[in-house]
Amino acid sequence: MRFIKMHGLGNDYVYVNGYEHTIADPADLAPRIADRHFGVGGDGLILALPPEPGVEADVRMRMFNADGSEAEMCGNGVRCVCKLAHDYGITAANPMRVQTGNGVLSLEYTTNADGKVDQVTVDMGAPILEPAHVPVAPDKLTPTDQPQTFRLSIAQSNELLTTTFVSMGNPHAMIYVPDVHAIDLTRLGPLLERHPAFPNRMNIHFVQLHARNEVTMRTWERGSGITLACGTGASAVCVAGVLTDRNDRTITAHLPGGDLTLEWRESNNHVYMTGPATEVFIGDWPD
Amino acid sequence: MRFIKMHGLGNDYVYVNGYEHTIADPADLAPRIADRHFGVGGDGLILALPPEPGVEADVRMRMFNADGSEAEMCGNGVRCVCKLAHDYGITAANPMRVQTGNGVLSLEYTTNADGKVDQVTVDMGAPILEPAHVPVAPDKLTPTDQPQTFRLSIAQSNELLTTTFVSMGNPHAMIYVPDVHAIDLTRLGPLLERHPAFPNRMNIHFVQLHARNEVTMRTWERGSGITLACGTGASAVCVAGVLTDRNDRTITAHLPGGDLTLEWRESNNHVYMTGPATEVFIGDWPD
Repeated sequence: MRFIKMHGLGNDYVYVNGYEHTIADPADLAPRIADRHFGVGGDGLILALPPEPGVEADVRMRMFNADGSEAEMCGNGVRCVCKLAHDYGITAANPMRVQTGNGVLSLEYTTNADGKVDQVTVDMGAPILEPAHVPVAPDKLTPTDQPQTFRLSIAQSNELLTTTFVSMGNPHAMIYVPDVHAIDLTRLGPLLERHPAFPNRMNIHFVQLHARNEVTMRTWERGSGITLACGTGASAVCVAGVLTDRNDRTITAHLPGGDLTLEWRESNNHVYMTGPATEVFIGDWPD
Repeated sequence: MRFIKMHGLGNDYVYVNGYEHTIADPADLAPRIADRHFGVGGDGLILALPPEPGVEADVRMRMFNADGSEAEMCGNGVRCVCKLAHDYGITAANPMRVQTGNGVLSLEYTTNADGKVDQVTVDMGAPILEPAHVPVAPDKLTPTDQPQTFRLSIAQSNELLTTTFVSMGNPHAMIYVPDVHAIDLTRLGPLLERHPAFPNRMNIHFVQLHARNEVTMRTWERGSGITLACGTGASAVCVAGVLTDRNDRTITAHLPGGDLTLEWRESNNHVYMTGPATEVFIGDWPD
């Protein structure tokens, strides 16, 4: 079975063209093929499939984590599905409508000199700002005079941090610091992820502002720890920076895995994320 | 460029048939191709090459770690070189002589029903037992009445452990425990690896004896931390168990990545390690 190894900013999956191969039990295959020592290795398995009947889309994305569980969507993964669907002849539509577990997303892409997809823009939807819907528990936080921003006390280390909260369907806490590389993410990440103020736990982003259109961020992802890139998190960073008057509506975010461009569009309140989709190699899985 | 992803007990490398492809700068390629998110992923890059002129061997192994440094030999890797050389038609010799950075090794193999190499036996050489050559510093250890065995005090945690030392060219410390899974290897490993009694640091193995021919081991490898399989370590475990009259000269060792059979042969004092070599998939690297 031919597979394609692709990544978006180092968030890497094994991709299979479901128009070419039928996988009977992807939840069973995912842990085996995603194993980094005994399999191909990756953060999981993603299939590019025909859309379900009645769904107006050009291609369908199904994604399975390395533990075999199915996930709704991944910003880095959906860019690669777009690249696969275009570069391997499933569809030439641009914008491309991709059916995901979070509904049908509209993606726009540019191609490089070889005619292959290079950068992809994803509509990440509108941010959710009400604290109860992020969700955070305001009674465990101290308000500040900035929008979306609270002071948070860490009991274990007796620290007080100022955090800005935005949900992009999943919860994000932004903490602005002068130097993101000076932060001990391995120590602070777990304490913040499971802070009592966060009923559904929290994705944690330390953010360093360089200019009104440029930030560097380091992320502790809920359930995953330190990751190379978090698309919903970068979107939340853009929104948080606009709300607290730190950055403009369009920014470049430097993530450990590479750069994303984010735009929080005034006309429709949606966040648009633009980033690369990269093919690494083609392989043949013996199953 | 065609590559073959193989592993020995989960110790996985990207293998290239050097009779088919010439790699100009393997030290440059290794970090890129071995990167687990941006490349193929593996513990490094291993090339199967023609032996150097004047060397009596059937194939030559060169191995590069994921950081680009060249290594002499790897017990799990050399079994896979044997499989590649046989299965891809480089040589049908059995025993097969493999030139490595540690000299020419003689390997014997069995094949499965498809005629592909299955299990490979590697002559791991003779153990080194003199404490000064392991090396350990006897003045920092308390002798016991068992051969090769000393009591070791860990200052940081005020613990006293009984350890048996054997070198297989690299240093190994064996600590026998009733249940290897109850050991906090992440805590003890670093303390033991860099204990002042070990001038060249130390590979640490916690060993649980099931019978005179069966052990389970968990390893903290010098410079690598917890690993799935350590062939020289399993060889050292076999020797330590014979010297302390715990096991017979032939044992099965259960490692996290799978099983090895070890024989410390009385006739020539060499240790023979038998284990699997597994091909995972074939891929095409775009370089």
